[in-house]
Amino acid sequence: MSDDKLKPLREQIDSIDAQILELLNRRARVAEQVGHVKAETNAPVFRPEREAQVLRKVADMNPGPLVAADVQTIFREIMSSCRALERRVVVAYLGPPGTFSEQAVYQQFGHAIEGLPCASIDEVFRATEAGTADFGVVPVENSSEGAINRTLDLLLQTTLSISGEVSIPVHHSLMTKSGTMDGIRRICAHSQTLAQCQVWLNLNCPGIERVAVASNGEAARMAADDPTTAAIAGEIAGQRYNLGVVKAHVQDDPHNRTRFVVIGRLQPGASGKDKTSLALAVPNKAGAVYNLLAPLATHGVSMTRFESRPARTGTWDYYFYVDVEGHQQDEKVDRAFAELRQNSAFFKILGSYPLSLN
Amino acid sequence: MSDDKLKPLREQIDSIDAQILELLNRRARVAEQVGHVKAETNAPVFRPEREAQVLRKVADMNPGPLVAADVQTIFREIMSSCRALERRVVVAYLGPPGTFSEQAVYQQFGHAIEGLPCASIDEVFRATEAGTADFGVVPVENSSEGAINRTLDLLLQTTLSISGEVSIPVHHSLMTKSGTMDGIRRICAHSQTLAQCQVWLNLNCPGIERVAVASNGEAARMAADDPTTAAIAGEIAGQRYNLGVVKAHVQDDPHNRTRFVVIGRLQPGASGKDKTSLALAVPNKAGAVYNLLAPLATHGVSMTRFESRPARTGTWDYYFYVDVEGHQQDEKVDRAFAELRQNSAFFKILGSYPLSLN
Repeated sequence: MSDDKLKPLREQIDSIDAQILELLNRRARVAEQVGHVKAETNAPVFRPEREAQVLRKVADMNPGPLVAADVQTIFREIMSSCRALERRVVVAYLGPPGTFSEQAVYQQFGHAIEGLPCASIDEVFRATEAGTADFGVVPVENSSEGAINRTLDLLLQTTLSISGEVSIPVHHSLMTKSGTMDGIRRICAHSQTLAQCQVWLNLNCPGIERVAVASNGEAARMAADDPTTAAIAGEIAGQRYNLGVVKAHVQDDPHNRTRFVVIGRLQPGASGKDKTSLALAVPNKAGAVYNLLAPLATHGVSMTRFESRPARTGTWDYYFYVDVEGHQQDEKVDRAFAELRQNSAFFKILGSYPLSLN
Repeated sequence: MSDDKLKPLREQIDSIDAQILELLNRRARVAEQVGHVKAETNAPVFRPEREAQVLRKVADMNPGPLVAADVQTIFREIMSSCRALERRVVVAYLGPPGTFSEQAVYQQFGHAIEGLPCASIDEVFRATEAGTADFGVVPVENSSEGAINRTLDLLLQTTLSISGEVSIPVHHSLMTKSGTMDGIRRICAHSQTLAQCQVWLNLNCPGIERVAVASNGEAARMAADDPTTAAIAGEIAGQRYNLGVVKAHVQDDPHNRTRFVVIGRLQPGASGKDKTSLALAVPNKAGAVYNLLAPLATHGVSMTRFESRPARTGTWDYYFYVDVEGHQQDEKVDRAFAELRQNSAFFKILGSYPLSLN
């Protein structure tokens, strides 16, 4: 009987668990002392750069057999529960609860927090600016649909800083009004989504026309109106328009992700592996972009993202959203920014924050 | 400067973290040996009764200052990642990803698993019966809208057993087409939801008629059709019908929950604190219910849930869904069931499983 062999092993596990439990609480008592020191100086409860360092360190030191990413999940919860002894951090996010935004909150802060679901991206900013929430989590970019414009607009105006980023995998499904492909004559989706699904579509729907539309949400709306149209979109969009799923997970790239940023009054210090987000504008779009960015190259600062966006607000035709490697306190970043600021008509550091783990 | 005081404390924490990391991997190595023993006898990777016992034990032994529920969250992830070294358990659930069903999956299995989102409750059963998934997670009951009928129907027919339960808090919002209360003449929701929100409604909407409808989803649909109607419903229903949120979290009872069951080929052993779910039918509804249930009282078995439901399938007018305290292997439960089975025209044990922690 295998239970005879299992019993001594389970006793070993129980004994290890008791030791882990003891250490967890010893850690919590030290964390409480940290809390007292912080309270004396009004220092923030949540220090993203410190937590990022701890998560990197345990992954680096991990001897196995546990998988490093799983160890990080465990330590994220350990830090979350220790932090909660000082105070449960309140985090506003784009509700409703039970969506990817809430998952992004847990992925950044662990589960020992107070989530505050908000009805709109604007409300997440307001709740965080007003201090109702310590932090807000908002979507900023979707790898198949591009930038979330409302977030970009609000980042220009807010007094809050970006203090972290989180990315969450997203999945696309082929959906129709009937839930079958009977009578379907075209498949609609955003062009990037169609591109990501092309291997699957070539194999499974070779004869059907593909039409690129403004967004996957728009494709879902069209499929709801027209029984000859199929949409490729997230299933939440499909639910909104009452579509049936023909086939789930049709994208070729399993790494399709939505990126969220964490916003707050906190400005994290350097963690050693950081990123800085900027918003810029120049009076004359055509000639000035190259000159604008020259200081980054000169000072050896790598740009990891560059996006231009027509201005809806303010004086300029275009805003440029730029992510660079490094922290604004890093010497070379600081020097590059000083020159960049001189070249720009509008210059705003949106925040420096630890690189996300995934 | 507070950083001078923090540094030695952080060094203590780093040293404790290194010890925790070492113990976690020592635990993982013992878990690998458990896996080898199990593989010899084809024993299941996931033993819900064993995991429930570990979670109860660490909560009972927890000396603090950590909160017991937070310690359980940490240990759930520890067990999940150790289990993943044998094999990542595949869990089917009612998709799309990013919903409460997915949260229920993580709450039962931790994050080190493979989730399989399905388009319908039927598909979750099929994927689990076919062995594509090791387990399925389906909603069975909502504290404001009652039973999920499709799940109850499928439980009657399936060869799978219930091996666990999970409950997740749900929130209701007041929503309208415009997102404001301008011109609203009535508020619709399921009667239980109206009852749960009555304190808030009396204070905030004293003059507005309240109308009980079949479900909160139906209320949301009505509000989408009629600009004078407001709905109280989950925000996911509101999103589906493009409603605006007037006020989030209007229910008086913060413990409003959706209950999920875990289904699988596995039949868990007794964990010490268990529940057993039954489905029963008797030929003549009116007279026979009391007699039907008498054996439970005789043998001192507590009934924690009793629900009748008109039969859509099969020979009987009504099916009764009964939950009792204890495991089917417990002597008094076994005796009571033997008599119950004689009284019933239809008798099926849906499963014995550990009581949920929350």
